[in-house]
Amino acid sequence: MATTGPRLAAEGRARIEWAEGQMPVLRSIRARLADERPLAGLRVGACLHMTAETACLASALAAGGAELALCSANPLTTQDEVVAALVADGVAAHGRRGEDADAYAAGVLAVIDAAPDVTLDDGADLLGVLHAARPDGLERLIGGTEETTTGLVRLRGLAAEGRLACPVIAVNEARTERLFNDHYGTGQSALDGILRATNLLMAGRTMVVLGYGWTGKGIALRARGAGAQVIVCEVDAMRALEARMEGFEVMPAVQAAARGDVFVTVTGNRDVLGPEHFAVMPDGAVLANAGHFDVEIDLPGLLASAVAEPRDVLPLVTQYDLGDRKLNLLAAGRVVNLAAGQGHPAAVMDMSFATQALAVEHLVRNGAALGAGVHPVPTDVDQEVARLKLAAFGVRIDALSVAQARYKRGWQVAH
Amino acid sequence: MATTGPRLAAEGRARIEWAEGQMPVLRSIRARLADERPLAGLRVGACLHMTAETACLASALAAGGAELALCSANPLTTQDEVVAALVADGVAAHGRRGEDADAYAAGVLAVIDAAPDVTLDDGADLLGVLHAARPDGLERLIGGTEETTTGLVRLRGLAAEGRLACPVIAVNEARTERLFNDHYGTGQSALDGILRATNLLMAGRTMVVLGYGWTGKGIALRARGAGAQVIVCEVDAMRALEARMEGFEVMPAVQAAARGDVFVTVTGNRDVLGPEHFAVMPDGAVLANAGHFDVEIDLPGLLASAVAEPRDVLPLVTQYDLGDRKLNLLAAGRVVNLAAGQGHPAAVMDMSFATQALAVEHLVRNGAALGAGVHPVPTDVDQEVARLKLAAFGVRIDALSVAQARYKRGWQVAH
Amino acid sequence: MATTGPRLAAEGRARIEWAEGQMPVLRSIRARLADERPLAGLRVGACLHMTAETACLASALAAGGAELALCSANPLTTQDEVVAALVADGVAAHGRRGEDADAYAAGVLAVIDAAPDVTLDDGADLLGVLHAARPDGLERLIGGTEETTTGLVRLRGLAAEGRLACPVIAVNEARTERLFNDHYGTGQSALDGILRATNLLMAGRTMVVLGYGWTGKGIALRARGAGAQVIVCEVDAMRALEARMEGFEVMPAVQAAARGDVFVTVTGNRDVLGPEHFAVMPDGAVLANAGHFDVEIDLPGLLASAVAEPRDVLPLVTQYDLGDRKLNLLAAGRVVNLAAGQGHPAAVMDMSFATQALAVEHLVRNGAALGAGVHPVPTDVDQEVARLKLAAFGVRIDALSVAQARYKRGWQVAH
Amino acid sequence: MATTGPRLAAEGRARIEWAEGQMPVLRSIRARLADERPLAGLRVGACLHMTAETACLASALAAGGAELALCSANPLTTQDEVVAALVADGVAAHGRRGEDADAYAAGVLAVIDAAPDVTLDDGADLLGVLHAARPDGLERLIGGTEETTTGLVRLRGLAAEGRLACPVIAVNEARTERLFNDHYGTGQSALDGILRATNLLMAGRTMVVLGYGWTGKGIALRARGAGAQVIVCEVDAMRALEARMEGFEVMPAVQAAARGDVFVTVTGNRDVLGPEHFAVMPDGAVLANAGHFDVEIDLPGLLASAVAEPRDVLPLVTQYDLGDRKLNLLAAGRVVNLAAGQGHPAAVMDMSFATQALAVEHLVRNGAALGAGVHPVPTDVDQEVARLKLAAFGVRIDALSVAQARYKRGWQVAH
Repeated sequence: MATTGPRLAAEGRARIEWAEGQMPVLRSIRARLADERPLAGLRVGACLHMTAETACLASALAAGGAELALCSANPLTTQDEVVAALVADGVAAHGRRGEDADAYAAGVLAVIDAAPDVTLDDGADLLGVLHAARPDGLERLIGGTEETTTGLVRLRGLAAEGRLACPVIAVNEARTERLFNDHYGTGQSALDGILRATNLLMAGRTMVVLGYGWTGKGIALRARGAGAQVIVCEVDAMRALEARMEGFEVMPAVQAAARGDVFVTVTGNRDVLGPEHFAVMPDGAVLANAGHFDVEIDLPGLLASAVAEPRDVLPLVTQYDLGDRKLNLLAAGRVVNLAAGQGHPAAVMDMSFATQALAVEHLVRNGAALGAGVHPVPTDVDQEVARLKLAAFGVRIDALSVAQARYKRGWQVAH
Repeated sequence: MATTGPRLAAEGRARIEWAEGQMPVLRSIRARLADERPLAGLRVGACLHMTAETACLASALAAGGAELALCSANPLTTQDEVVAALVADGVAAHGRRGEDADAYAAGVLAVIDAAPDVTLDDGADLLGVLHAARPDGLERLIGGTEETTTGLVRLRGLAAEGRLACPVIAVNEARTERLFNDHYGTGQSALDGILRATNLLMAGRTMVVLGYGWTGKGIALRARGAGAQVIVCEVDAMRALEARMEGFEVMPAVQAAARGDVFVTVTGNRDVLGPEHFAVMPDGAVLANAGHFDVEIDLPGLLASAVAEPRDVLPLVTQYDLGDRKLNLLAAGRVVNLAAGQGHPAAVMDMSFATQALAVEHLVRNGAALGAGVHPVPTDVDQEVARLKLAAFGVRIDALSVAQARYKRGWQVAH
Repeated sequence: MATTGPRLAAEGRARIEWAEGQMPVLRSIRARLADERPLAGLRVGACLHMTAETACLASALAAGGAELALCSANPLTTQDEVVAALVADGVAAHGRRGEDADAYAAGVLAVIDAAPDVTLDDGADLLGVLHAARPDGLERLIGGTEETTTGLVRLRGLAAEGRLACPVIAVNEARTERLFNDHYGTGQSALDGILRATNLLMAGRTMVVLGYGWTGKGIALRARGAGAQVIVCEVDAMRALEARMEGFEVMPAVQAAARGDVFVTVTGNRDVLGPEHFAVMPDGAVLANAGHFDVEIDLPGLLASAVAEPRDVLPLVTQYDLGDRKLNLLAAGRVVNLAAGQGHPAAVMDMSFATQALAVEHLVRNGAALGAGVHPVPTDVDQEVARLKLAAFGVRIDALSVAQARYKRGWQVAH
Repeated sequence: MATTGPRLAAEGRARIEWAEGQMPVLRSIRARLADERPLAGLRVGACLHMTAETACLASALAAGGAELALCSANPLTTQDEVVAALVADGVAAHGRRGEDADAYAAGVLAVIDAAPDVTLDDGADLLGVLHAARPDGLERLIGGTEETTTGLVRLRGLAAEGRLACPVIAVNEARTERLFNDHYGTGQSALDGILRATNLLMAGRTMVVLGYGWTGKGIALRARGAGAQVIVCEVDAMRALEARMEGFEVMPAVQAAARGDVFVTVTGNRDVLGPEHFAVMPDGAVLANAGHFDVEIDLPGLLASAVAEPRDVLPLVTQYDLGDRKLNLLAAGRVVNLAAGQGHPAAVMDMSFATQALAVEHLVRNGAALGAGVHPVPTDVDQEVARLKLAAFGVRIDALSVAQARYKRGWQVAH
């Protein structure tokens, strides 16, 4: 059922307003940018998920003086009402949920045609097209930011070939990002997705977490906090030792397979759970993936292990009958916190987009000095985001006294 | 859109099958009852929520030899497809989702007219009608079970007046019930309901739990496990001390009100959060109730504190604008784990209905000896349910050796 | 080296003063008793451990108006300097560290000869002698208190034979006692004793806790808090289930024996760890007992399992060489929190002796109404101790409003 | 009382044997070194704490073929019986507990005179003297290791001036070191030291941890695990945010001062607690320092705040009377885990000395390639220590399959 434009825009504004309420860090940055106007006269092009949170980021950059052009980084995540609201407010926003590849590409080109001084990417599409097809657009470009690991791989590839023509800030490698996005964000939302899909009682269960990186640590922590026994599987000795020192059991996956009630893969690798594991899992075991791609659970192997067609027993649960036992796969092995939950809490996006906004400001203020290449988020930006988040929590902290600062320097120097 | 009977029944059977998969304790009881047939020749009448889990209970009792008559304890929770499946399988099952009061009463009477030897109640409707309107039905009655606190209050009222004519087993006061239903079940599902309604990131937040009974303890434990700081408010000194000894902060509600991001009431009392608390809560605070009735948050007081009409900002979130701050009420103050989540995990219902089944068996085997009155679940039944749950987890435990049993007795007697 | 009397008394006074600093609950009771003088004109006889904490209890009772006579409940725990301080202050205190049985008995008789109106026992010696040898002393006796399980067994034996002639308050069964003494007190101090004896790093270790009663729960909680994986062994299904629901692994002892690094018995039973367990324990395993008697680890069985004489490798660690592996027994299998640690923290004694003081007051105010028999600590006393402990923590809590109290009553009555 | 040489050596051997039992990682390295003999023909000089654990390290290096010369890094920690055992076994070991500065210097020179190919330092004394006074000794030197931060500051100072003549491995900056030494080691032992000094019950208390680096995190974790509420104070926004996200309260020190029962400083800075904090601390507050130097608590300021001479109320507790309140300082403000506890558990030393042994082997195998300068512990060494520690725990882990290794490389390269 179609919604008329004005009504759609009104819906979008309500949604944006709610998102703003959840993004205090970005709000405080917007307030400062509105005062200082460091982006006055500049054009910012962004290819991001077209959501209410992105609208809040756009609003902060506009408050700083930028003229904006936006397009969608993924047609599946576009919120049409948000686009409508942006357009109604005069922002050059492109995208429609479910648009086809041509429409998508047109959106990217429209942003590039707006001749941005700074770009924001979520997958390196703007910078990719600029380098591949519109090199003249690179001349005025101060630099860009990138939000994803995949995008960084592309851009670092360019840099390795000596072809990257501008500074790029690796926003998703900021420490606050890791903490909020991977550790606490996905830690919570992966468990949340599993509960929404299955309504399992976690207390008393055994959860096997395969992979103990930032995200795996977060999931293991939250699973324990929900009352589960947690077993960790790792191929890296140092990470395995850390898991053991945190009080988790650590063992090979095939041994854990026989013990677990719930399995979560989060390794970044493929076939972490395969036929040899399926063969020993207990009846009713639940399999979920929290890694980026749906290759961590060997889906063809699972299908081959089954004696009958898989069937959907709950909206997000597919049951595989192995003859003597049944296994339950969540969300077809796709990333469970997005597929079965609501994805990242707004507090996570608040931190990401606060870092984005400050990274843009950093490029504008210091871009010339940075040089072409992929750069980490400056420590100052990380500290500032942390400081603003503490302020949003209402938390104050001490500062070093003059004597303490001297002592600290002195100790480092004089000893 | 109407579904044809056979198809509805098929849907119901699928749902029942899934539920059975989640109820290993009840399954093992059913297997034993099928062997021993202790209910052969008896009629069992049940007025329960007509859900897939209840169908599993019915199946266990039928396996034990009982002839069943079922009616709904609440028209809002009836799963029509489950009723259809039961009817298709020849069970006398009554109820339709959203049926009116007359239809509801007719269901109760139909069960009573089936002349049950044992009743199962969820709110004392069967026993209530039997005592009030069909006293002749009491003569053949061996006894009944009751699942709710409210029902027990009614039945104990009858008993206090000397009018209760049969033994009643207080199923919901079993220790396994408390553990699973209140502590772990609601502990998890209340938090789950809050997350589904709001998608908040719990890490770093301050949650205020008002009431530190079985359920409050469960919620506090799970909130901490999700990374929140937890503040407990209590009026009972012993409970308050226990909370403090568990490492929670304890303080008066009005003081906690100024600190909390999320508030959960679970006291069993009224107006636990009122205007004096709303007046000091921070902007964006979330208010939820996990107590049985929607009186714990003073809703008229909240409305009176607002300067504008409340508005729904998310499906389960109503925002109250207090002028300088906005407060977010979840699920209109109704019990959040049911209203915003999926209610109790099947593992919880497994324990409840296992206790129900064993309580029915106990009545049949020992009813004559019990005498009229409300009786606790026998320790044997509690132990048996615990034993079966451990078995379902695949957990074995030791038994006392002969020498140890003697030592234990000896110590108790001889010292 | 002998210390002169006045100097010894001064030492004792310093020690008592320090203890008072740690006993805020008892201090506040003393202040009230000094105001109200409910014990004026009464004689109180106490057979307790003659320690600084006991001196504080005596001081509170004296402040309430009582005349005191004290003797030691155990020659091994007597602090001579405390006795000296009491005597110097005019209190009739008897006992000397290491005194022989005759001297000990003389102390008990001296207290009885003081014709107490109320007795305090730690092992039922005063009440035992009164009933067995000085029945005339029972006539004036209002009642007594008892601090130990062993003493209660004796007194309940008397009661079962119809021979108990006065009311006795079972102080150690108060809920605050259980919480502080067993759960938090021994929970912490047992772990503390193990660390002092061995200096083990707990993180990464597997601790097996045998017995999951109040104390076992406390030890398991603290071991997990120190970073250990915890396995629980239990013979009771309900307790085993609770352990599992708390996220602990539960298994038979012989299976746990092969996994554990540290073993703690706390069952109240004998031979919980025996040759079949020793046979599979890993090299270097540490064995400790936190139960009352040194029978929980089968010491003869351990000796028989060894291929050589045991030898003391650290002050509190005896190593048994089993040929292929070595096992380390702590404190000769005696209760590890006392034998290897400092026993109960003063905060625990504060709660115990606060309960003692209020129990004495309760006997004096209501003794006639109580009747002969062993009585639980009144709920009022438990609540008052909890209330005072909260006050000592500086914690305030809410009270029910009039409307809430009415609602609570109304709900219980009217529904 | 003097012990005769042979008897002293026997005592030392027993102590070394016990230590070996606690050092499985070092034992397994010794076994491999004995097989491979990579140090054959080399001389190793070590200036370390002369303890049983050091003797185990010496034994591992000797097994690898090295000829050893040892001297003490600190006369206060020398275990004379260990030196006696080493000497009796033909090792050139120098040092005596409490020896004067001349004797100490003679020990260092004796080791240097042994013309070591590799040095091990705990404070840079060997390398310091070699560079300052015996530069000819540097010619044959392959390199050295350093165990302390202080030593590294000295050596990096040398390097900054271009004067460091050999490669130095910064052993204490290895990840396993941080994890075991700072996080888990000091985390446990600092709390342990506080409990030994005071016998406080931690449950229900509020502990304030000032500083949230590796060690502060460990202490906060363990204090929470012991049942305390934990408040964290930090001057660094990122660390403060991490503490908050872990569920700790974060606030300025002066605000925390009014709330805490126990205070632990671990900042590496001075005057973290001073008169403005003492002025608001509650009566009976306990002050401890877990930082390296005794400057973190402002001791002159504490003395100046007192109205009377401080007095020792327990062996490690000095009480300061502030008039209206008394504060209790532990161990004179010196590092509490060493001063009031037993310092690092053997498991910590096992990891440190395993890293030392592998670092020595690394220098021998790759020293020429390293170049002069302070080098981090190679990742390989860290991984190997982690691997061996897991093996000592009996933990096995998976390895990447060929396909997975290819996927991992492929993803990094191709994307």
